[in-house]
Amino acid sequence: MQHAPDSPDQLPPTPDYDAWPVETRLSTVEHQPHLVTLHWQDGRTSHYHSIWLRENAADDSTVNPATRERTLDLSRLGAWPTVEAARLDDTGALSVTFAPEQRTLRFHPGWLRAHDYSNTEHIDAPLVPVTVWTGDRHDAPHSLDAAGWLEREPEAPDAQALLESALTAVLSHGLVRLRNLPTEPGTLARIAERIGPLRSTNFGSLFDVRAKPDPDSNAYTSIALPPHVDLPTREYQPGLQLLHCLENSVAGGQAVMMDGFAVAEALRERDPYAFETLTRVKWCYANTARTSDYVWYAPMIRRDDSGRLSEVRIADFLRGPLMAPFDDVEPAYAALTTLQRMLHEPHFAMRFTYHPGDLVIFDNRRLLHARDAFAGDSGQRWLQGCYLERDEIRSRLRMLRRAERERRVASLVTGDTPTL
Amino acid sequence: MQHAPDSPDQLPPTPDYDAWPVETRLSTVEHQPHLVTLHWQDGRTSHYHSIWLRENAADDSTVNPATRERTLDLSRLGAWPTVEAARLDDTGALSVTFAPEQRTLRFHPGWLRAHDYSNTEHIDAPLVPVTVWTGDRHDAPHSLDAAGWLEREPEAPDAQALLESALTAVLSHGLVRLRNLPTEPGTLARIAERIGPLRSTNFGSLFDVRAKPDPDSNAYTSIALPPHVDLPTREYQPGLQLLHCLENSVAGGQAVMMDGFAVAEALRERDPYAFETLTRVKWCYANTARTSDYVWYAPMIRRDDSGRLSEVRIADFLRGPLMAPFDDVEPAYAALTTLQRMLHEPHFAMRFTYHPGDLVIFDNRRLLHARDAFAGDSGQRWLQGCYLERDEIRSRLRMLRRAERERRVASLVTGDTPTL
Repeated sequence: MQHAPDSPDQLPPTPDYDAWPVETRLSTVEHQPHLVTLHWQDGRTSHYHSIWLRENAADDSTVNPATRERTLDLSRLGAWPTVEAARLDDTGALSVTFAPEQRTLRFHPGWLRAHDYSNTEHIDAPLVPVTVWTGDRHDAPHSLDAAGWLEREPEAPDAQALLESALTAVLSHGLVRLRNLPTEPGTLARIAERIGPLRSTNFGSLFDVRAKPDPDSNAYTSIALPPHVDLPTREYQPGLQLLHCLENSVAGGQAVMMDGFAVAEALRERDPYAFETLTRVKWCYANTARTSDYVWYAPMIRRDDSGRLSEVRIADFLRGPLMAPFDDVEPAYAALTTLQRMLHEPHFAMRFTYHPGDLVIFDNRRLLHARDAFAGDSGQRWLQGCYLERDEIRSRLRMLRRAERERRVASLVTGDTPTL
Repeated sequence: MQHAPDSPDQLPPTPDYDAWPVETRLSTVEHQPHLVTLHWQDGRTSHYHSIWLRENAADDSTVNPATRERTLDLSRLGAWPTVEAARLDDTGALSVTFAPEQRTLRFHPGWLRAHDYSNTEHIDAPLVPVTVWTGDRHDAPHSLDAAGWLEREPEAPDAQALLESALTAVLSHGLVRLRNLPTEPGTLARIAERIGPLRSTNFGSLFDVRAKPDPDSNAYTSIALPPHVDLPTREYQPGLQLLHCLENSVAGGQAVMMDGFAVAEALRERDPYAFETLTRVKWCYANTARTSDYVWYAPMIRRDDSGRLSEVRIADFLRGPLMAPFDDVEPAYAALTTLQRMLHEPHFAMRFTYHPGDLVIFDNRRLLHARDAFAGDSGQRWLQGCYLERDEIRSRLRMLRRAERERRVASLVTGDTPTL
């Protein structure tokens, strides 16, 4: 069952540019000085602290109307904001009078419902749930036919749908493959900008992966590359890597991808001490080239504040000399060689051959990529690559979801939406 | 006292492109299966694990000679590498025979000395010690006259010296001011590239900070901005910000800078519970614009694995609705308002006026910048800005130091260096 607000166009503004469908209405409100309790028509009860409500108001005393950025400084209010009165107004919105300001502010019910922290269990749940995989169960990247995609307007519904599928796959499985894209050099920049701005590095904005006469990276030779992330020598490794195949006629050179989180989880299970060691000891990652000298010290496996895996930093050919406390050195190498042996186990890896027009987008802080050696004289192998941050995928996906919410708000107002 | 090696040009290679002066010689060596102990002529004793030595050899079985990147995979050796023999050869280098490979490898004494982890107390000490400051003791940015700097070759010794001073100041105090630079729009890109590649964002590669008719950020209005970092809405805030003044004839609009680490340290001292709360509770940082939607959840103060302050994420106008566990909300706001009050204390801040040709480079994960309101009709105020990563400063500074080591190696070989 759905309820359109009584006077939808008179609902208060929200503190952002987003759209918040009102899919259930408020029925009653209670208050104490520090708390407002809302009862919804679907039976839910929500609690909001007075200070939280005060700072999240959307009026001109709180938010700059031109930018929707906050201008309120709580510490200037003179006292902790408390609730003097709270009621539902005739648009269905919450109206609260705050002391010490004696200011009455209105709150949009759709926005309140979406930000009901008193009923939110996983505050910082990822936008898309993470699915950890191994190559024996997931033997090829999720693939989408992108023929014609780049020629369509980014706003076209089918172009948006393809992008949403692709970004969702990157957030869940860490990678996606788009097929049948153009093979003109430089196309990658146009593709990447459909997601967000590129991250340039000392290798340039777009880089060419092919055997070079005077290579400044093992990537630019024809030798095999072990499973690795790119640029572990940076304080923050790039969050995303895009590799776009322009030519591939060599013998060998198969692409290998594995989920670093699957390897890390397996290590935790088989050898918890090795796992703990790799989350603790800081390895040296170094790329001392002729014209740059990047060095960073970090553990090989990272968890976030909630204990979830957040990053692997594995790249044997970019490790510099370990400079750990003396007694950590042997345990660190023991853990490393255990991990290295696991990286050779075939069941972790998926293997595939790049075809011209393929683009693989993958999470460079989670996935490990590798390649088999190839015969440099057997043909041409040319990939173009670039980096982006994971922020760009999340922002783009939120924009796509926002567009969907806008359509829902519109249909609620016109009343032409079917059941939820 | 210094010792040139007996046959410097026959010393073994090092595993990198760097230069390692031999300023004291090896006198004797002892070994056990897992350990090599070196005695140096200046009295120091150093210990190295067998596996550490094995993986840090610089020969072609370990390192790709073209790229100096490692090709050795320890897990392929078949067994833990142990020492069968160790001696000093007649060039003064360490020579070690390893089992199970039965391979004899040589190690450069200057490189060994520089990587003596058994005598290194602070493994991950910063390149330049951090100096925390307050505005009452440090009332203006460290300033350097950069007239003519951009016209000189980057390799010119005086151009390098100016850059080294500037980068050292950014790493120690978090900021530096270069003066008397050109004021042509776009010059900033040329300046930044003397350090490293720019980090582009949704605001572009270079952004213009001036009052705009249809602002998408409070920065692009004439209102005061409270102390803040830029882009806290990103998983990783840009490490560096550069602001280059092209015009400034307005009344007001003074620049304000403060050391976020000084504020955080003062908070820890005055109200440890508030400090702990701000290192723990994840705030929401959100920039929901018309064409992008960046959101990230993170604590306001971060420490690294060693407990040192590593980041502040303070920007009231870019906070979205706090979505913390219910019982954390009031303590979080209590800590926030305590912090906000401290940000108003005048002794933390330095205040200065941008002159055309000024460039300020600052650590955007440490320093807070702010500006006073200005009268939009009183003149022109135009800054150009861009972001870089802190990696770029460290790489550039290492390159400058490498050049210095190369000069020392050269002078040791020719014997024309004075005492250390």
